[in-house]
Amino acid sequence: MDEEKKVGTYECVAEPFHVDFTGRLTMGVLGNHLLNCAGFHASERGFGIATLNEDNYTWVLSRLAVEMDEMPRQYERFRVQTWVENVYRLFTDRNFAILAEDGRPLGYARSVWAMINMQTRKPADLLDLHGGCIVDYVCKDKPCPIGKPSRIRVQAAEPVESLRARYSDIDINGHVNSIRYVEHILDLFPLERYRETPIRRFEVAYVAESYYGDELSLYVDDCGGNAYAVEMRKNGKETACRAKVEFGGCCK
Amino acid sequence: MDEEKKVGTYECVAEPFHVDFTGRLTMGVLGNHLLNCAGFHASERGFGIATLNEDNYTWVLSRLAVEMDEMPRQYERFRVQTWVENVYRLFTDRNFAILAEDGRPLGYARSVWAMINMQTRKPADLLDLHGGCIVDYVCKDKPCPIGKPSRIRVQAAEPVESLRARYSDIDINGHVNSIRYVEHILDLFPLERYRETPIRRFEVAYVAESYYGDELSLYVDDCGGNAYAVEMRKNGKETACRAKVEFGGCCK
Repeated sequence: MDEEKKVGTYECVAEPFHVDFTGRLTMGVLGNHLLNCAGFHASERGFGIATLNEDNYTWVLSRLAVEMDEMPRQYERFRVQTWVENVYRLFTDRNFAILAEDGRPLGYARSVWAMINMQTRKPADLLDLHGGCIVDYVCKDKPCPIGKPSRIRVQAAEPVESLRARYSDIDINGHVNSIRYVEHILDLFPLERYRETPIRRFEVAYVAESYYGDELSLYVDDCGGNAYAVEMRKNGKETACRAKVEFGGCCK
Repeated sequence: MDEEKKVGTYECVAEPFHVDFTGRLTMGVLGNHLLNCAGFHASERGFGIATLNEDNYTWVLSRLAVEMDEMPRQYERFRVQTWVENVYRLFTDRNFAILAEDGRPLGYARSVWAMINMQTRKPADLLDLHGGCIVDYVCKDKPCPIGKPSRIRVQAAEPVESLRARYSDIDINGHVNSIRYVEHILDLFPLERYRETPIRRFEVAYVAESYYGDELSLYVDDCGGNAYAVEMRKNGKETACRAKVEFGGCCK
């Protein structure tokens, strides 16, 4: 397949209620756009959620890492490109480029996905699906010049914050949705932190689903260099997700 | 002007992270779409925020009432029509129709807006602006078969909930954004409430701006008939907004 055809390109715009107090798109909304574009791209190739659901399979986002030189401003049009970098037996790597209207790269993102059987919740073999044709979509030539999702560890013994999962947190599957985790993590930081320097890199690793009414506690390590590692635990024990937020800095 | 040209029509889609656990668009996201469409429509006619800002004026949403027979489902395409019903000296009434892809009405909305001078925060005379040409856009012929925003009163003496305005709440003007108020109000109700019957009508009246760090307390009256009146007060005193939420019922 032509390498060009392996890349999906989608138009977006930074809506007024989707920008923060600095007038720039929030990381949560950007994440939403990326996941939508991943959905469009997969659907157009026969691997969309709707098709998979018919066979009782679904995609599960495992990791997302976004690195931005610049966030789109209010009303700014931008483009999201997405492509599949690798397919393994249990995971696939999907990359993104976020481009300004003039084609200038604003940033990049990497994501890791698994496919599960919705009944057994067990992972599916991606190379076994549709006769292994998913590998035809792998695009090796397009660069994604940002680091891979890293291993995040949090030492903090006490939560800085606790909240309960509510109506607005819950998606069609009855789980707290991936974007709301990001928003709750962004809300840990005071406005001053965002005013000094915007987020340069945001990483999140989804570990376990949480549900309506779950108590979500947030543990934070200051990694130095304007970077923070965050762990969200549900009901005082199990890890729901981990994240790393770098405000122009570098987290060790 | 041709009556047809006075109505703006905009295409929308119910994105996966914008639907709730029932798979239907949330009222907050619908509100966001309506306000975006209001913005497009005003801009196309020379009354957009960007143009107004140059002269130090801006639109302020005063009231919004939405009544839905049916909310769009996940991935469903729908259309928002909007038009100006009335222009008075200090307020203008803007209506909306929400249509399914086949043109069937899913619901309607009414909104009331004022224009203020951004420096003095005083209201502007709408009939004075651009030589009064705003009245040329008034469309009297298109029906909006739902009740006008009503007067909301809340008696409750104790708040049921309190929260602090955070990063994700704050818009480019430094205020808690209109949609986040809606979301915080929706989050007052348990999932069961939404499962029994979806929201039929949602009304909100914006009274005073709130800011980062403000403590927002929510007071709720059960009006009977599956309807609730809500008042949000900031820092224990001033009213920020009032709302009425009707789950298929009717609030007296």
